[in-house]
Amino acid sequence: MTDYTKTKRTTLKRAHERGSYDRDAVHAILDEALICHVGFIHEGAPAVIPTAHWREGETLYIHGSSASRMIRALEDGAPACIEVTMTDGLVLARSGYHSSVNYRTVVVYGAARKITDEADKLAALKAFMEKIVPGRWDELRAPNSREMKATTVLAFPLKEVSAKIRDGGVLDDEEDMNDPVWAGVVPVHRAFGEPEPDAQLRGDIGLPDNLKNYTGPGSIPG
Amino acid sequence: MTDYTKTKRTTLKRAHERGSYDRDAVHAILDEALICHVGFIHEGAPAVIPTAHWREGETLYIHGSSASRMIRALEDGAPACIEVTMTDGLVLARSGYHSSVNYRTVVVYGAARKITDEADKLAALKAFMEKIVPGRWDELRAPNSREMKATTVLAFPLKEVSAKIRDGGVLDDEEDMNDPVWAGVVPVHRAFGEPEPDAQLRGDIGLPDNLKNYTGPGSIPG
Repeated sequence: MTDYTKTKRTTLKRAHERGSYDRDAVHAILDEALICHVGFIHEGAPAVIPTAHWREGETLYIHGSSASRMIRALEDGAPACIEVTMTDGLVLARSGYHSSVNYRTVVVYGAARKITDEADKLAALKAFMEKIVPGRWDELRAPNSREMKATTVLAFPLKEVSAKIRDGGVLDDEEDMNDPVWAGVVPVHRAFGEPEPDAQLRGDIGLPDNLKNYTGPGSIPG
Repeated sequence: MTDYTKTKRTTLKRAHERGSYDRDAVHAILDEALICHVGFIHEGAPAVIPTAHWREGETLYIHGSSASRMIRALEDGAPACIEVTMTDGLVLARSGYHSSVNYRTVVVYGAARKITDEADKLAALKAFMEKIVPGRWDELRAPNSREMKATTVLAFPLKEVSAKIRDGGVLDDEEDMNDPVWAGVVPVHRAFGEPEPDAQLRGDIGLPDNLKNYTGPGSIPG
């Protein structure tokens, strides 16, 4: 697979060694993250709204209430910027200046296509649930027509895309190396707690296998 | 303290019971989160960039390289939208439609003021480090003039601000309550691993107290 083609606005100007246009790297970040941050222009001013997202192939999806301001702003193809970030560590250098954060970020520029075909929309919603809890879609009743109507699914082609990754340890100035201060990295990660059953859950229903030792999308079961 | 005053764009139109304009609620979310998502307009199109942030009183701060595209776009007071989100749980309802995410989000609209006074800038940078690791600022050498020059600090007044919070359990339709499927919430939280010392750390330097049992900003040490 070829890399994403750089454009002016996806080309890193500083710390360019942290940039990546590799499809696998971009996909892995998008698939692991639960939440994206959707930037759009609303009445002439920037707006950013968080929402869940999912990916299939070279398409990034979001969904929302058909009445939502974000959906209405984007469903007709207005320009958007979708950003996804996983925070991996606090980089505590020997100076404030070199202190940093380890992270993995993807930025997608593009315009949405509204999914209007009912079968395509259903398939997209299934892919969303399958990202979060594989197998769960088939355990649930199907969406009804009222729910389908109330939900808009937007698809963004992954074309103008870049990843930026900061990993590894501290990068201090040579003259600071002997300073009497601790330096290193404090790892940050996402953790999932024990699933908490609904108080009204039927007494005969136990925790399904797909929620045992749950570690979230895109991660390796541990 | 009075609440933040609602404006047209900070007034929730749907699920308005999830909205909050309470200063303490907004502050708590901003103080706990490590990363914000800065929306701005770049060459007529929306852009979103993640960066660390901190707060003092009714001011939200970000910083960056004086050469960065985001800093240059915002330092002259262009309109911005800064969004912060903590993800707290996966809400697995008995239908896809009612499945949701527990989260705490703050959205700030405003324009930046560039901190030009050197003492104010230094105080702001100290407050940033104190948010991340209390006491660490005084363990580090002071920033030098080259570093100060290379760093821009932007201040956003917390005026046009709202929080949105989804918490609690599943909210299913009555007719789905007997469905043969597990329902409940999978908690999501941020976790910090054991600090990893730099390979070149001086042999006589151990882990300082402010990094023992580290639980991150805004959270209660456990």
